[in-house]
Amino acid sequence: MNYVLPKGFLASGIHCGIKRFKKDLALLYSKSGCKAIGLFTRSKVKAAPLVVSKEILRKGAPIRAVIINSGNANCCTGWYGVRDAKRMIYSVCKSLGLRFNNVLVSSTGIIGKRLPIELIEENVPKLARLLSEKRLVSAAKAILTTDKKMKIAVEKIDIGRREVTITGIAKGAGMIEPNMGTMLAFIMTDARMDKDAIKSTLKDACDDSFNAITIDGDMSTNDTMLILANGAAGNVPIKKGTKELKLFLSALKKVSFKLARDIVEDGEGATKFVTVYVEKARTVRDAYKIARSVANSCLVKTSIHGENPNWGRVAASVGASGVNGIKQNKFEIYLDGICVFKGGKFTMPSRDKFYKIYKRKNVEIAVNLNVGTKQARIWTCDLSKRYVEINARYT
Amino acid sequence: MNYVLPKGFLASGIHCGIKRFKKDLALLYSKSGCKAIGLFTRSKVKAAPLVVSKEILRKGAPIRAVIINSGNANCCTGWYGVRDAKRMIYSVCKSLGLRFNNVLVSSTGIIGKRLPIELIEENVPKLARLLSEKRLVSAAKAILTTDKKMKIAVEKIDIGRREVTITGIAKGAGMIEPNMGTMLAFIMTDARMDKDAIKSTLKDACDDSFNAITIDGDMSTNDTMLILANGAAGNVPIKKGTKELKLFLSALKKVSFKLARDIVEDGEGATKFVTVYVEKARTVRDAYKIARSVANSCLVKTSIHGENPNWGRVAASVGASGVNGIKQNKFEIYLDGICVFKGGKFTMPSRDKFYKIYKRKNVEIAVNLNVGTKQARIWTCDLSKRYVEINARYT
Repeated sequence: MNYVLPKGFLASGIHCGIKRFKKDLALLYSKSGCKAIGLFTRSKVKAAPLVVSKEILRKGAPIRAVIINSGNANCCTGWYGVRDAKRMIYSVCKSLGLRFNNVLVSSTGIIGKRLPIELIEENVPKLARLLSEKRLVSAAKAILTTDKKMKIAVEKIDIGRREVTITGIAKGAGMIEPNMGTMLAFIMTDARMDKDAIKSTLKDACDDSFNAITIDGDMSTNDTMLILANGAAGNVPIKKGTKELKLFLSALKKVSFKLARDIVEDGEGATKFVTVYVEKARTVRDAYKIARSVANSCLVKTSIHGENPNWGRVAASVGASGVNGIKQNKFEIYLDGICVFKGGKFTMPSRDKFYKIYKRKNVEIAVNLNVGTKQARIWTCDLSKRYVEINARYT
Repeated sequence: MNYVLPKGFLASGIHCGIKRFKKDLALLYSKSGCKAIGLFTRSKVKAAPLVVSKEILRKGAPIRAVIINSGNANCCTGWYGVRDAKRMIYSVCKSLGLRFNNVLVSSTGIIGKRLPIELIEENVPKLARLLSEKRLVSAAKAILTTDKKMKIAVEKIDIGRREVTITGIAKGAGMIEPNMGTMLAFIMTDARMDKDAIKSTLKDACDDSFNAITIDGDMSTNDTMLILANGAAGNVPIKKGTKELKLFLSALKKVSFKLARDIVEDGEGATKFVTVYVEKARTVRDAYKIARSVANSCLVKTSIHGENPNWGRVAASVGASGVNGIKQNKFEIYLDGICVFKGGKFTMPSRDKFYKIYKRKNVEIAVNLNVGTKQARIWTCDLSKRYVEINARYT
C-alpha cells in the first residue's frame, strides 16, 4: 500500500522535545479550506484542546490545518490548558498565515502536566516549513504514544471519473473503550462533498470500527476523530442519499476499519486479537452490551492470554451483562467456531477440537442468544502481564 | 479472637476429592431449626445450587443445615446441575435425618464441569460424623478456592443479659464485584429474632460491605450470602425497630465488614488494599457509580500497583463514569490524604508529599465532587502481574 495523502493535503511531523527522543508534533494542512466534522469523547472530563476545537468547529469556518502533539494530553491543566491549546493554534496561524478559526488542535499523552508550550511555539515554524506531500509517515509517527506501530490507511475510489482518495492516520493503544478510548483518528479526503453528506457518514463509519473496540474499558479524556474534506478531487459534489455517497462510505469504512483494527492489534501488551460476536439478540443495544461485557471481562481476557478455553467465564460474563431476557438454556457459545455451550451445558467437543481453541493469534468468541434477530461485534485483545508492566510504570 | 460458633451450631470440613489435596466439602448444622434468609447473585446465569436453595428458602421451612463444596461451581451444567445439587441435599438428609426443605446447598469453583456427585455422596456420612462445635476452621477452609487465607469473623453482644454470638465465614478472591462476585458468606447467630427483623438487617449489612467491594469487576454466577438464626441464645426475640435490633445490626455489620475486608485483602495477586471514597455527590447512586468507575479502572489499579501517583487516571475515570453534573473545575482528588487536583488542575504538592502517595499497603483515593451531600465507599485492590498469571492458568 502506498502511503499517499489526498490531493491538496500536506503533512509533517517532528521531534520538538515533549518526549525525550521520539517525534511528538504533527501538522496536517490543506491548500484549500476543508469541510470538517469531529467526534469527541463523551467523558465528563474533557481535555482543553477538545474544548477549543469543538468551539471552532461550531463556528463552521473552513478548516485549513490541524496541529497535534503527543506526550502530553493537555488535560486537567486548569485555565492554562485552554490558553496553551489556543497558543498552539496561534503559532500555526502565524507560520502559515491563517486565521484562528481555520485551525484545529489535538493532544494526547499524560494527563495533568502543563504543556511545554514554549517548546511547541519555537518548533512550529520548522514544522510548517517541512510540510510536504511526502511526509504523511512523519505525521503518523508524531501522534503516537505507547503505540508500537504507526497506523495509516489509504483507499482510492472513482467518483464520476475523478479519483478520490481517503487517507487516515490514528493512534491508540491503551485506554481504549467504546465511545473512543485515548484514540485520535484524522481522516482526510479530497472528495467534494456536502457537509450533510459528510455528517451522515460519520456514525456509520465509527459505529462498527472506532466505537466497537475496547482494550481495557477505560474511556479517555482526549478521544477525537476528525474528517476533513477539501474537495480537491474536483468531482461533482457528493450529496446525501446518492449512490456516490454509498461508494464513498464503503471506502471510508474500509479506512476506519483498518485503523480500528490496527489500534486493537497494537493494544498494550496484546498477544491476541479477539473478535466477540453476539447474535440473535432482541436489540442491537442488548447485543453490544453483552459483547462489551465479554470483551471487558478481565477473566475472559486473561484466559485467552493463557490459551485456556475456560468458556465458563464467557457464560458468566454474558450473565453479568445485566441484559434482561437471557435464557440460560437457550444461548450458545462458540469459541473459535467450536460449540462449547448449548442447552445449558458443556457440549464436550472432542479433545482435539477443544485444545485448538485460543491457540491462534486471532481468537473468535460467538454468543448466540436465540431470542431475536439483532447482532453486534466488538474487537478487543487479551490481558497480559505486559499490560500491567506498561501501565504500572508509565508516566 | 476465638473462632467460636454460636450456641447450637456445629460445623465440619473435609477433603472429598473434588480438589486434589485441599479441603473441599463443608457442612454447617444447627441443633434446632433456623430462620434463614439469603441474597444471591443478580447475574442472569445462575448456578444450579442457587436455583435449588432459593426455592427451598421460598418455602420458609426452618433450616437445619447447609452443605457447601468448593472446586466446582455446579454452574452451566444443564439438568444434571439441579439434580446433583438436590442429591447433595438428599445425602445430608440421609446422614442427619432431616427433610429436603431443611437443607441448603452451595457450590463454588470452576464453571461448566459436572460435579463428581458420587464422591460427595460417599463422603457426606463422614462429614456428618465429624460435625463439632470445634470444627469451624475446617469448614472455613473447605469453602475456599483461590483464596490464600480463610475468612472468619466473630462478634459477641449482650441482648437482655443473654450473650448472643454472630459468626461468619466467607470465601472469595477473584470475580469479586458489587452485587456479590464469586463470594460465599455464611453468617450464623444464636440470637432469637423475628424473620422481619433479620430481613431488615440484610441490606444494611451488605450494602457497605459485600456489595461495596470489587476486585476485577466480574460478577459471578454463584454468589451467595446466608444468615441463619437458631435462637439458642434464649434472648427475648429481637423485633423490628427496637434498640436490640440496632445493637444486633451493629455487631452484624462488624462481622460482614471484617469478612468483606478479608476478601479484598486476599484479592487475586493483590499487593495493596484500596479504599475509594466519593463525597459530596448529588445522590448515593452517583457516588457509587463514580467510586466503581475509579475502583474498576485497570489503569488506576495498575498505577497503584506500580506506586505511581498518576492522578490523571483517577480524574479520567471520574469523567468516564457517565455520571451527569460532574464539574471539571469543581471536583477535587485526594490520594492518601494529599490533595493533587483542585480547580481543574494539579495542585503541585511538595515533592516529599507527592512521593509518599501509594507507597503504603493501604491506599486511599478520595474524590470530592462538591455538588451535593451524598457519599459512597468502595474497597478494591491493585492489578498485578500475579493476577494475570493466576487467571491465565486457572482450570
